[in-house]
Amino acid sequence: MTAPTGVLDALKAALGEGGWSQDPDRLAPKLVEWRGRWRGSTPLLALPGDLEQTAAVVRICAQAGVAITPQGGNTGLVNGQIPQGEILLSTERLNRVRDADPSDDVLVVEAGVTLAAVHKAAARIGRRFPLSLASEGSATVGGLISTNAGGVQVLRYGTMRDLVLGIEAVLPDGSVLPGLKRLRKDNTGYDLKHLLIGAEGTLGVVTAAALKLFPVPAGRATALCGLGSAADAVAFLALAKTATGGAVEAFELIGRTGIELAARNLGLRDPFSAPHPWCVLIETAAAEAGAAERLLETALAEGFEAGLLADAVVAQSESQAAALWNLREGQSAAQKPEGVVWKNDISVPVSSIPAFLQAADAAVQALAPGARVAAFGHVGDGNIHYNIAQPPGGDGAAFEALRDAGARAVNDVAASFGGSISAEHGLGAMKPAEAARYKSEAELAAQRAVRAALDPGRIMNPRVLF
Amino acid sequence: MTAPTGVLDALKAALGEGGWSQDPDRLAPKLVEWRGRWRGSTPLLALPGDLEQTAAVVRICAQAGVAITPQGGNTGLVNGQIPQGEILLSTERLNRVRDADPSDDVLVVEAGVTLAAVHKAAARIGRRFPLSLASEGSATVGGLISTNAGGVQVLRYGTMRDLVLGIEAVLPDGSVLPGLKRLRKDNTGYDLKHLLIGAEGTLGVVTAAALKLFPVPAGRATALCGLGSAADAVAFLALAKTATGGAVEAFELIGRTGIELAARNLGLRDPFSAPHPWCVLIETAAAEAGAAERLLETALAEGFEAGLLADAVVAQSESQAAALWNLREGQSAAQKPEGVVWKNDISVPVSSIPAFLQAADAAVQALAPGARVAAFGHVGDGNIHYNIAQPPGGDGAAFEALRDAGARAVNDVAASFGGSISAEHGLGAMKPAEAARYKSEAELAAQRAVRAALDPGRIMNPRVLF
Repeated sequence: MTAPTGVLDALKAALGEGGWSQDPDRLAPKLVEWRGRWRGSTPLLALPGDLEQTAAVVRICAQAGVAITPQGGNTGLVNGQIPQGEILLSTERLNRVRDADPSDDVLVVEAGVTLAAVHKAAARIGRRFPLSLASEGSATVGGLISTNAGGVQVLRYGTMRDLVLGIEAVLPDGSVLPGLKRLRKDNTGYDLKHLLIGAEGTLGVVTAAALKLFPVPAGRATALCGLGSAADAVAFLALAKTATGGAVEAFELIGRTGIELAARNLGLRDPFSAPHPWCVLIETAAAEAGAAERLLETALAEGFEAGLLADAVVAQSESQAAALWNLREGQSAAQKPEGVVWKNDISVPVSSIPAFLQAADAAVQALAPGARVAAFGHVGDGNIHYNIAQPPGGDGAAFEALRDAGARAVNDVAASFGGSISAEHGLGAMKPAEAARYKSEAELAAQRAVRAALDPGRIMNPRVLF
Repeated sequence: MTAPTGVLDALKAALGEGGWSQDPDRLAPKLVEWRGRWRGSTPLLALPGDLEQTAAVVRICAQAGVAITPQGGNTGLVNGQIPQGEILLSTERLNRVRDADPSDDVLVVEAGVTLAAVHKAAARIGRRFPLSLASEGSATVGGLISTNAGGVQVLRYGTMRDLVLGIEAVLPDGSVLPGLKRLRKDNTGYDLKHLLIGAEGTLGVVTAAALKLFPVPAGRATALCGLGSAADAVAFLALAKTATGGAVEAFELIGRTGIELAARNLGLRDPFSAPHPWCVLIETAAAEAGAAERLLETALAEGFEAGLLADAVVAQSESQAAALWNLREGQSAAQKPEGVVWKNDISVPVSSIPAFLQAADAAVQALAPGARVAAFGHVGDGNIHYNIAQPPGGDGAAFEALRDAGARAVNDVAASFGGSISAEHGLGAMKPAEAARYKSEAELAAQRAVRAALDPGRIMNPRVLF
């Protein structure tokens, strides 16, 4: 698709000076996915500076039937943000913090504000926005909403969907949805905000959001536990949630392979003398000073008594806690030197994690004997990063050639447990066909009907979703 | 609308013996709203016993263009559940608890299970479902989902929307949405479950749901505070949330008028010697034994130090706590003997509560001089039950005649603060026109487009919503 010159002229006029670009150097970083996996092109980079300009861009495009790809911080992993000839609408200039209110526990920010800036703005009024992920310096509110981002605190606070009170957006016809409410209760028809969350830019452009804030906990306590099985980890999570009354904020699994790769490739020390098959990093947070530590001790004591824990180390300082977190956060980096690694983004019900791991391991070994499963991730929300490194010293190209078959095998196993093939990243243009395999005709038909109703010309991110 | 005989015969055949009724005695309680405010009629009461029968009913009706009104526990307040000639689809026989799993913190129940039964099923596995409301013995899961019910714990746990992991439903064409997932993270297209939540039966029939469970807190502490102004109450809430790290589970406001009416009409004692303009009932809950009490004491001490509290009484026993709750829960009953009372269902941003109360009081006095505002309710989510009793000894009929104008005046004030005219109850067939006044054309158009896309024949609860 190429946009008619008249449309480009109309867009330039609506956006004014500084509101658009066709400069290859300016465009370049926005036309390549950050890992270099996808590259694209666009006739025009639109840089609206406010709601009205955003609405004008969409209206002009809708009337001319010209497609748009919205882009936030360009941190997406599933090719949802790279245009292939569409107008590229960047939220870069929608970067204002509009309001921060501790009485409402609300932060109102524009779509282009980064997650790191959200954290800072919340801290300035003594509050906390409890969503954290690795790309927080680049990832923006609009993208976090459009992909319903997750992170490590989902166990306690939920995903982005759970943290949004209101959304201001431009719908696919260029009309404005003025939904920037800061209400905790509002039942006046369909909640369109929840349609836009996770819609990956296909139902409109999010321009601003009212985000929920939370109190800052007085204390935090961190431990690493050694366990004999993934089943023990799941049982320990249930026990720990009960024992701490919900104060568990993180519960991260690391398999033996991951601990060993972190030692070999990153020089990170296994704190245990015995090689435990599984480790769990558990963190509690509580309002009262000292309570997080006491609650963690209680959970650990009950875990030992129940025979679920083989060993445990409690961090005695912030630097010790950071060292334990390094073991978890270094997992991807630790795998890199091992050659080709298959990744995925599955989730399963928490209770199914042990059976999923067993069945997936069997499927992987059948496909690629000797491949090394280095599973780690969020037990609390069933989102295990089920990564698989090539056999040691094996043929990387041969393993690479099996990547799609490997993904299919792991996805099939996840689906057989009622799981998801995209827990955190969305589908983008990369995974809709794969996702459709696991959905019923009724659901696909409903999704397509909703999209066609709101965007009959399919101008919003047309290559993405169903 | 009357259903053709052939359709009724087909429905009877699909439902089998015990699956339908035309017996006036059996139908009677389902054809009248529980306060007697609305009465209806139906050619047939359909009582499907499982998902397949529910799908068959909807499919037969969709093909014949015959409308359906779904009904749960018949506790609705906005005329969403009483048929006016439609087929009445009751979820009464969809009453099984399908699964309860402490590892997943999930309870899978059918739509006709009551909230009281949900509480019991959660307690049986040592967990808690943190949504409570007065009608919990009758209100059912399907209705709670379809109206996105609230209650007193929204401050900490959110509304029904926040407590649902998955939904199984029959869509308006009779197809089945098999969405009974128990995943905490799943991003594979539009989340249709969130369209069905709060859709008041217009987008299909919810047949079952996977609900989130939570740990049971070890302790709870309750106090009643006397305050000089609503602004002090809002400021104290912010302070208490910070001081307790989010352990505040209830924060309920009662105005002076309400305290006096409770004394006069229910014999409930004001625990304070001085008549404070406002009271707040605050409750904390925490994982550790003793922590709820300590956190409450901390919050109260800081409240006094900040000059926000004039007095406070802390419950020393469960019976003292129950007595404080009686003051709050008796508010509606305490108003009844005073004659005609206007009610509404507004919410505003928490920070706007004081200004809302001032502006609404002025609007009410302009309309009905001498009317007595007895405001009470949930400060934490901005959902103030802004009830207005007729002037003492005044003309009830004249005050009744002003009811609609009074509702309009209060709604206008709430809307001017970015509030909602239906915080908890939904719109039903009673309030869509009023709600439409406060919505943009773009939002109404989007709501109608989504509905038409999923239910082109408008057979699902046609008189309800937009």
